Amino acid sequence: MSLNIPEYMQQVGKNASNAASILSAAESAQKNLALIGIADLLIEKADWLEAENAKDLEAGKANGLDEAMLDRLRLNNRNILGMAEGLRQIASLPDPVGEISNLNYRPSGIQVGHMRVPLGVIGIIYESRPNVTADAAGLCLKSGNATILRGGSEAIHSNQAVAQCIQEGLKMADFPAESVQVIETTDRSAVGELLRLKDYVDVIIPRGGKGLIERVSAESLVPVIKHLDGICHVYIDDDADLDKAVSVSLNSKTHRYGVCNAMETLLVADSVAAEVLPVLSTPYKEKDVELRGCSRTQVILPDCTPAEDDDWTVEYLAPILSIRVVDDMDQAIDHINKYGSQHTDSIITESLSKTRQFMRRVDSSSVMVNTSTRFADGFEYGLGAEIGISTDKLHVRGPVDLEGLTTQKYVVFGDGHIRQ
Amino acid sequence: MSLNIPEYMQQVGKNASNAASILSAAESAQKNLALIGIADLLIEKADWLEAENAKDLEAGKANGLDEAMLDRLRLNNRNILGMAEGLRQIASLPDPVGEISNLNYRPSGIQVGHMRVPLGVIGIIYESRPNVTADAAGLCLKSGNATILRGGSEAIHSNQAVAQCIQEGLKMADFPAESVQVIETTDRSAVGELLRLKDYVDVIIPRGGKGLIERVSAESLVPVIKHLDGICHVYIDDDADLDKAVSVSLNSKTHRYGVCNAMETLLVADSVAAEVLPVLSTPYKEKDVELRGCSRTQVILPDCTPAEDDDWTVEYLAPILSIRVVDDMDQAIDHINKYGSQHTDSIITESLSKTRQFMRRVDSSSVMVNTSTRFADGFEYGLGAEIGISTDKLHVRGPVDLEGLTTQKYVVFGDGHIRQ
Repeated sequence: MSLNIPEYMQQVGKNASNAASILSAAESAQKNLALIGIADLLIEKADWLEAENAKDLEAGKANGLDEAMLDRLRLNNRNILGMAEGLRQIASLPDPVGEISNLNYRPSGIQVGHMRVPLGVIGIIYESRPNVTADAAGLCLKSGNATILRGGSEAIHSNQAVAQCIQEGLKMADFPAESVQVIETTDRSAVGELLRLKDYVDVIIPRGGKGLIERVSAESLVPVIKHLDGICHVYIDDDADLDKAVSVSLNSKTHRYGVCNAMETLLVADSVAAEVLPVLSTPYKEKDVELRGCSRTQVILPDCTPAEDDDWTVEYLAPILSIRVVDDMDQAIDHINKYGSQHTDSIITESLSKTRQFMRRVDSSSVMVNTSTRFADGFEYGLGAEIGISTDKLHVRGPVDLEGLTTQKYVVFGDGHIRQ
Repeated sequence: MSLNIPEYMQQVGKNASNAASILSAAESAQKNLALIGIADLLIEKADWLEAENAKDLEAGKANGLDEAMLDRLRLNNRNILGMAEGLRQIASLPDPVGEISNLNYRPSGIQVGHMRVPLGVIGIIYESRPNVTADAAGLCLKSGNATILRGGSEAIHSNQAVAQCIQEGLKMADFPAESVQVIETTDRSAVGELLRLKDYVDVIIPRGGKGLIERVSAESLVPVIKHLDGICHVYIDDDADLDKAVSVSLNSKTHRYGVCNAMETLLVADSVAAEVLPVLSTPYKEKDVELRGCSRTQVILPDCTPAEDDDWTVEYLAPILSIRVVDDMDQAIDHINKYGSQHTDSIITESLSKTRQFMRRVDSSSVMVNTSTRFADGFEYGLGAEIGISTDKLHVRGPVDLEGLTTQKYVVFGDGHIRQ
């Protein structure tokens, strides 16, 4: 008999909601016990996890997945250790839940403060990488939320194996099994049902390619925390220190190519372009970075590819860099706010006044001065761990840490106070 | 020739987006100049405002609006002064925009902090009360956001008159006219278009009845900050001080009836019900409050109306109170989390231990102890002014103040730092 998907998902939602009310009041020690228990189990069962993963890899090969996809899907000793290490690190982070801040007396005599509390139920929809199962479950558990995880069908055996370790760890710490539910069916309609569970699910976080995120955003009746493109810029200002300009521009583009915080477009002030671009072009060429330049860039670097309009709005995730020579910082800011994706943008300048303006006027989740865009990352920012980088404006912007998975309520203390 | 609504609304969105980038970098003094200018103009033009308002009142009467509706629609000397006073008060509040917090050095040597910034463009959809035009425009302007206001068609002359004062005030302070746009057409399709402007509008705040808010939430492609029902509870615990219990219960219900922070359901612990309910019933009767009780309440108060299932989920906004006798605090918390609207709930107890549990486990935007629910209010909480009370969990919960109309971005300072 086949599964009735809408009924199954309703039940998943109800279960999660019940578990959430238990998790929200759980003490940190209990949550840490579960996290460390899961970490130990992952290592203990590493061979079995690899064997289950092998089934997915085999099916993937048979279904013609390319090498990059298979690589993301693969569980080996190194990334199993990484999952366990990640969970132990989450256990070591301070628990954000229950913190009361700004507790002040009001003229009426009542005390009003803010208490940090879990969001409730978090749905995570992700692709390929089975390690997301452990990472996401760990972050949501520590922040006191119940989790519904829906991974890609190509990773079903791997995800269910990780899920089994999670279940055992939850049991060891006396948490209900429904604290973390990994959807058991690969039926695609389960995603659609999950997106309609607005009575039970408080937020959906999609992790994966642009297609997935756009589908989820368009369909979801539940609020979504999105992680869209990273079209990041470095702007080399008239007042730049050219050594800093060169090293930051190289690092932002070539440190890693397939990441959302890599630079995709370099903007250079006209007054320094003729000096800095030739210096930069040599190391870029050595690393086989294709340069695509605007007309003014082409005059300075005659062998670069002419940039098309599309080049300002594409996330290459590849050794390709678009370059535009601009009149001044104003034009650079206009370019960033028009073509960028509000992810991460950096100015190279020694001018304090221009730093102040750039920091204020660039509307991105991370705005930097004299710093490589590659630093836009939860660990580098000291957040401990992240579940993604939000390109939304509401609720949480930039790296989403434990605090991003919580909200605040008002707490009010009185002594029989009534309003006059 | 009739207005092309989709084209008109696209233009409104584009204009707002352009104005937003100017507003986001504006200094506080300039914003305050506009706010005080608008306040002065409202008072200067009070007679004209009343004359324009009279046209709406006349049309309203002709269209059969009831007295309560006409009352909400009416502009008189008192509420014109109130609008002006509200704007002056907003001018006197600290500007949240640009504040940098938690600026710390990281082990890599970069400095990372959080900067508070405007959301961008805020769309407000509201009914009847023309004073919302000034209040909402003022709060959005102070928080550096561009505003698109869409009021009810029954208030079109009043809203356009207030809008004209806003335009003159913006001009006096050298702000673009598009900083605040009041939709000129009463065509209902303009609302639908506004809800689709996701490329230009960052958040929609509906202010009005449940029908409006539900329509907006269901249709909007733009994130919505909702203000739904206030089904507020007071729970009188076994360990309550009965004097406090009586005065808070009376105040929470009878201070004002038509407000979202009025108590709608009273929960009483079984052990104290026979003592406290008779004491309460007399003053409730004196104020003509209809009591609807559960079966155990009916034994204690034989002349109360029997409560139906619906009575636990209805926002009466009227002199009606449902009463349920519960076994203990656990049952009270279950009742609140099941039937409540996550708005405001209060426990009356002298027990520290139960206070700690109630505060942690009740999942509402305001959780109180020994305090009247009527205190759930931006002014009482010291927020200065509010644009509504959010019953959402994401982004902002409870009274929405200037800070609720902003977001944060990361700012990163380096000195040529690159990632190793």
